[in-house]
Amino acid sequence: MTELRIALAQTNPRVGDYVGNSEAIRDAISSAAKSGAELLVFGELALTGYPPGDLAFRSDVLGSADQALRAIVEYSKTAPNLTVVLGHIRKASVSNHWAKAHNSATVFRNGTVLGTYDKQELPNYDIFDDVRIFIPGNQELIFEVNGTKCAVMICEDIWRPGSRLKALKASGVEVVVSPNGSPWEAGKPQKRLEISKAFTAEGIGLAYVNLVGGQDDLVFDGNSFLVTQKGEVTLRAKAFEVDLIVSGTGQEASKEPEELEQIFKAIQLGISDYVRKTGHKGVVVGLSGGIDSALVATLAVLALGKENVVGVRMPSRFSSRHSLGDAADLAERLGIDLRTLEIDKAHQAFEQTLNLSAIASENIQARIRAVLLMAVSNNENLLVLNTGNKSEVAVGYSTIYGDSIGAYAPLKDLYKTDVWKLSKWINTHMNSELIPENSINKAPSAELRPDQVDTDSLPDYEVLDGILRQLIEQHATIAEVVGMGFDKDLVNKVDRMVRAAEWKRSQAPIGPRLSKVSFGRGRRVPLATKFGDLS
Amino acid sequence: MTELRIALAQTNPRVGDYVGNSEAIRDAISSAAKSGAELLVFGELALTGYPPGDLAFRSDVLGSADQALRAIVEYSKTAPNLTVVLGHIRKASVSNHWAKAHNSATVFRNGTVLGTYDKQELPNYDIFDDVRIFIPGNQELIFEVNGTKCAVMICEDIWRPGSRLKALKASGVEVVVSPNGSPWEAGKPQKRLEISKAFTAEGIGLAYVNLVGGQDDLVFDGNSFLVTQKGEVTLRAKAFEVDLIVSGTGQEASKEPEELEQIFKAIQLGISDYVRKTGHKGVVVGLSGGIDSALVATLAVLALGKENVVGVRMPSRFSSRHSLGDAADLAERLGIDLRTLEIDKAHQAFEQTLNLSAIASENIQARIRAVLLMAVSNNENLLVLNTGNKSEVAVGYSTIYGDSIGAYAPLKDLYKTDVWKLSKWINTHMNSELIPENSINKAPSAELRPDQVDTDSLPDYEVLDGILRQLIEQHATIAEVVGMGFDKDLVNKVDRMVRAAEWKRSQAPIGPRLSKVSFGRGRRVPLATKFGDLS
Repeated sequence: MTELRIALAQTNPRVGDYVGNSEAIRDAISSAAKSGAELLVFGELALTGYPPGDLAFRSDVLGSADQALRAIVEYSKTAPNLTVVLGHIRKASVSNHWAKAHNSATVFRNGTVLGTYDKQELPNYDIFDDVRIFIPGNQELIFEVNGTKCAVMICEDIWRPGSRLKALKASGVEVVVSPNGSPWEAGKPQKRLEISKAFTAEGIGLAYVNLVGGQDDLVFDGNSFLVTQKGEVTLRAKAFEVDLIVSGTGQEASKEPEELEQIFKAIQLGISDYVRKTGHKGVVVGLSGGIDSALVATLAVLALGKENVVGVRMPSRFSSRHSLGDAADLAERLGIDLRTLEIDKAHQAFEQTLNLSAIASENIQARIRAVLLMAVSNNENLLVLNTGNKSEVAVGYSTIYGDSIGAYAPLKDLYKTDVWKLSKWINTHMNSELIPENSINKAPSAELRPDQVDTDSLPDYEVLDGILRQLIEQHATIAEVVGMGFDKDLVNKVDRMVRAAEWKRSQAPIGPRLSKVSFGRGRRVPLATKFGDLS
Repeated sequence: MTELRIALAQTNPRVGDYVGNSEAIRDAISSAAKSGAELLVFGELALTGYPPGDLAFRSDVLGSADQALRAIVEYSKTAPNLTVVLGHIRKASVSNHWAKAHNSATVFRNGTVLGTYDKQELPNYDIFDDVRIFIPGNQELIFEVNGTKCAVMICEDIWRPGSRLKALKASGVEVVVSPNGSPWEAGKPQKRLEISKAFTAEGIGLAYVNLVGGQDDLVFDGNSFLVTQKGEVTLRAKAFEVDLIVSGTGQEASKEPEELEQIFKAIQLGISDYVRKTGHKGVVVGLSGGIDSALVATLAVLALGKENVVGVRMPSRFSSRHSLGDAADLAERLGIDLRTLEIDKAHQAFEQTLNLSAIASENIQARIRAVLLMAVSNNENLLVLNTGNKSEVAVGYSTIYGDSIGAYAPLKDLYKTDVWKLSKWINTHMNSELIPENSINKAPSAELRPDQVDTDSLPDYEVLDGILRQLIEQHATIAEVVGMGFDKDLVNKVDRMVRAAEWKRSQAPIGPRLSKVSFGRGRRVPLATKFGDLS
């Protein structure tokens, strides 16, 4: 294996975009061949996009996969010495309830298919739905490249190898090539490197290729790597970028960025790919002068360019002067188009239409702002970015159809305390201080009534986030959280708020997943529930 | 078995409500004992509620199940001659990724547990997530009741019995008791009766007990039954109602209602249980004078009582006189509180705040109405009922954060042509004609611009629904639908609309599931996609 020149192609597919995905694949084949690679490996379902969801039930989507694959196999004649391993869905000969496709990888060279492998271990925990949409395979595929025996294992297969590695070794396999669709979360890149130990223990090399790019709420981070039979990491592709790396060419291994930089890149990629893959160009963000909207606007500018971001100030009778000033300051630093749309005329019109209770009057301001943002969105074909953070989303500190609207929520999986950390990180690491210090330092407020601050309704965010991390990320019980020293009444209150907010979350925009338990695909809780009465 | 007196308890649990669910279980135990029953069977997870979703990962929810079960086993001493089969979740000794619970049924008598069975076949298609949240069992549980050998199979187990029935028969089993959580969809009750044939073929009787009630978007219809070893249906419980039936007591078997009546009952139960189980009392409905809102208000009154339904007319500069008149006529027939809130003041206020494109101006009217309905909701703690139908939801003929808002969408899984049919059915079968003829007969219009009618943007609903039924319910390809005689350009247009509406649906309220492919839990499609380019 040490002599085999292996290329890892980290592409950014869009689900179902066979034309665009095929183009990236052909480019990678040509580049790899030029670099003298003998074996080229793509990520999981690189041809179809991952995860395809229930589109895998559609026979036209399966038919298109087959057609696109044939065209690429034909194209491989232009690189006759290169063996290619390409992931795609394919029609199974049997079906199981709705599932009728395999999650496959086809190996081909010079216009000829050497074989097709079907993923055997189908994950169905966390964000994964593979059991729902795929039929598992049960056959090894061993193929030879210039004298080196290789085998294929797809994603979950390498996390649950069972006795397969011993059997592959006995068959003379020296390297396993593995297409993966592994979304980023904190600490994940390191965990992936660790699974290569099981391969090294058997004297098998591992060519691990991940996808890159945002697909709905998932962000694939790339970070593909090659580990030799002796356990040496000889190749490491870039994080959060399209990349093609080839062994034996003296390319330097990319380094893993620090965690805040990874979060920064994950959110940026999430924003830019969601906007691009849904066919949009720009976004509009409501700027309150607070830290959440300042961070969202900054991330959007860095992801999309300042000409594609519109900021809107929407002052009310309760807005403080610093809110308007801080928003203007931010817009100037970012160089974005800033509009000002007062909400008081509409607020008065609604007050003349019906009597409003205190809570109705607070909510209506947030909803008027939503109407204005959606009007700008409709007028100019811009996506609305939501500015809520994970702490707010968790406890439901938002107005449904008000500040909870939007196509994409960049901070949805970032706790408020991390919002501050990331803002400071950006100010330290960008060329200029983009986010006004005042937005970072002032006390958070929804400004829906006079002198309102978040701590009227919520504990300090340090405390709140401490409780939330236990309840949500660790599935801890109330008793366990109290045992860590948090106030019992407060923990109970927070838990009740988290459960009551389930219905708001059920109608919330998606956002980039940064943790194992994000609010979205990774959590499925019934709305009409009651529990804990006996505990 | 013919001599064994079996009771089928069709209860309506709420997920996690151990107090309320236990009370219903104790009542059933007492009633069954009084009727002289020897064996009492409940539905799937009757103690915990079904489906528990990711709550099954919480150790406090599992702990509460255990505690509640012990209390009921203790209570069974009050009915010493009754053997009880009760469904509940329980902590497994092993875990698999996030899953750490079994989907179980415990058999007990006179304070003593005879054994616990764990569901073996875990469904993961359609609306089901059992593979995600449960660990499968692998042991039969055979128990004796006054000389008759019985075994337990839970829900999916009886649909995929494999060789188990032969083995059970060889062990002397005469009757299988089966707790089920089987949501209603058209034609489902008949299909369940048909699976008893496999049992009859082996000379085994089947006591099939289903849950009843709405749980989020699922509606369990009851329709429990008992089939003897000879294949005779001797007991059949009510459809869509809590029920307890006991063999040998001469109770008459309930008859299956006609399909429109089943749909009618399913939606009513969906409304009343969602409102009740989320801790609310009443609802508010925007009344446009059109058929959708008229039907929703009528269903709500029949489900909740007229005193718990508020109607709101929200006329605009484009509203026709008949709209106001028809809404008033409806409110009078239903006897509900009717409010009128003009939207033009707010519309003008927004027009003075920013310029509105044609589409923005149409959408803003729908959004002002949403703000008003939510203000009424906030003022009076009423849930907003959404009035969209499946045809509109499918093609995205609605305004996000406008008429697409609400806590619950009663017509979400009912095509427009079926909305008309159900309205006529209600007028024929209720004591008085509740829905104005004019609302049923006039041309549908959103009334967001002068003289607008739905057919400006959509084909006739008969044609649209014909296409949609193929694309959605049958997963048909465009070519297949065209092959049935529909216009190619139209089918392509409808298909594009369905795909583009995915993001609106991702933020839509839930509604009662009436078909296999409802928009909600039963469909998981990525938002940022492109496909079909090669087909």
